[in-house]
Amino acid sequence: MPKAVVCLSGGLDSSTTLAVCKELGFRPYAVSFAYGQRQHVELEAAARVAKAIGVIEHRIITIDLGQLGGSALTDTRIEVPKDRSEAQMGDDIPITYVPARNTIFLSYALAYAEVIGSTDIFIGANAVDYSGYPDCRPDYIACFEQLANLATAIGRTTNAIRIHAPLINDSKAEIIKRAVALGVDLGLTHSCYDPQGDLACGHCDSCLLRSAGFRDAGVVDPTRYA
Amino acid sequence: MPKAVVCLSGGLDSSTTLAVCKELGFRPYAVSFAYGQRQHVELEAAARVAKAIGVIEHRIITIDLGQLGGSALTDTRIEVPKDRSEAQMGDDIPITYVPARNTIFLSYALAYAEVIGSTDIFIGANAVDYSGYPDCRPDYIACFEQLANLATAIGRTTNAIRIHAPLINDSKAEIIKRAVALGVDLGLTHSCYDPQGDLACGHCDSCLLRSAGFRDAGVVDPTRYA
Repeated sequence: MPKAVVCLSGGLDSSTTLAVCKELGFRPYAVSFAYGQRQHVELEAAARVAKAIGVIEHRIITIDLGQLGGSALTDTRIEVPKDRSEAQMGDDIPITYVPARNTIFLSYALAYAEVIGSTDIFIGANAVDYSGYPDCRPDYIACFEQLANLATAIGRTTNAIRIHAPLINDSKAEIIKRAVALGVDLGLTHSCYDPQGDLACGHCDSCLLRSAGFRDAGVVDPTRYA
Repeated sequence: MPKAVVCLSGGLDSSTTLAVCKELGFRPYAVSFAYGQRQHVELEAAARVAKAIGVIEHRIITIDLGQLGGSALTDTRIEVPKDRSEAQMGDDIPITYVPARNTIFLSYALAYAEVIGSTDIFIGANAVDYSGYPDCRPDYIACFEQLANLATAIGRTTNAIRIHAPLINDSKAEIIKRAVALGVDLGLTHSCYDPQGDLACGHCDSCLLRSAGFRDAGVVDPTRYA
């Protein structure tokens, strides 16, 4: 069974992606990032999910994104927007966008894959509910795959590196149904951008999308709200 | 004058790249990376060079590459190869290659550019003397430029992001001549992979290429060797 690196934030999408990766027959190496995010409790969720689903190893890499600033997720002086409508969410790049975040995450995942000798990287990027994030779209993922094959010895030789984003065109409700079908305990996952302790705020974009997803999927929402 | 982000290791190539960036009329924002490299004195060289050439600001970002291992530059248990011939250097990917390093560096530079509102990133990548490094070749740089334009709001709107690698096709001797013509004090730069204090070892690939470059350029080598 081939090895795969899985970017695991501890949220709904990345946890489901880990389950998909296992279902496809890979041996998963999970990697999470401590990047100065205000929702750092998601790292505890990532550890719970990694343990529950089962991984070969789970690494948490500390990266210095907060120092660069520019996002409500890494700068506590910027407020996380609350109670926005879906139209408002889709309008523009939100202030919760972290500059170049997925590019940095995928670069580390690529380094990790190169070190363990894997050619497969999984990421829970989703183009539907996060249309405002440019680095969550299929053309971006395809371009990173091309880059990864040019950037590495194994890629240059075999063109074998694949960036898998299995949920990229799914709605939140579809992701939740898929997670349930794969037996993922979604109560272990964390999505909120502005948690109070380990309780979700219920009002940020991420909470609103998650809660609407459970409703649309007809699945009981296990999230504990403040 | 437009802003530019310049990746500055403190070595000969990146220092010359900074001088080229200024010569082209950009206001440079330098960024260096503390990545657990054994040659961490290069960060002091970077600070000296940034001050001497003049930058708007100089940021040093700590990144957790050593934790992943896989390179002689970040793992002191792996020896830096010494006294290799140029044929040996060109043969294969050397053990001093750091997995995905340029991809990670460029990703941070991209985040930095996005935060300061710049569309120009300079890197001293060179395809001639480091033919063994896959992420120092023109097709790799061109692909990262494409990725940067897909990854960011400004890139999606304008396709304006440019990754400049002005030395990519130059020999070491040509780079040295260019540096001299631009008035760069090469005595401030540091290239050695395995320094003793702040003295260069004189035997690693980087020292050998640098010293041959000075010889071929007919320029007195200001490097202080152990």
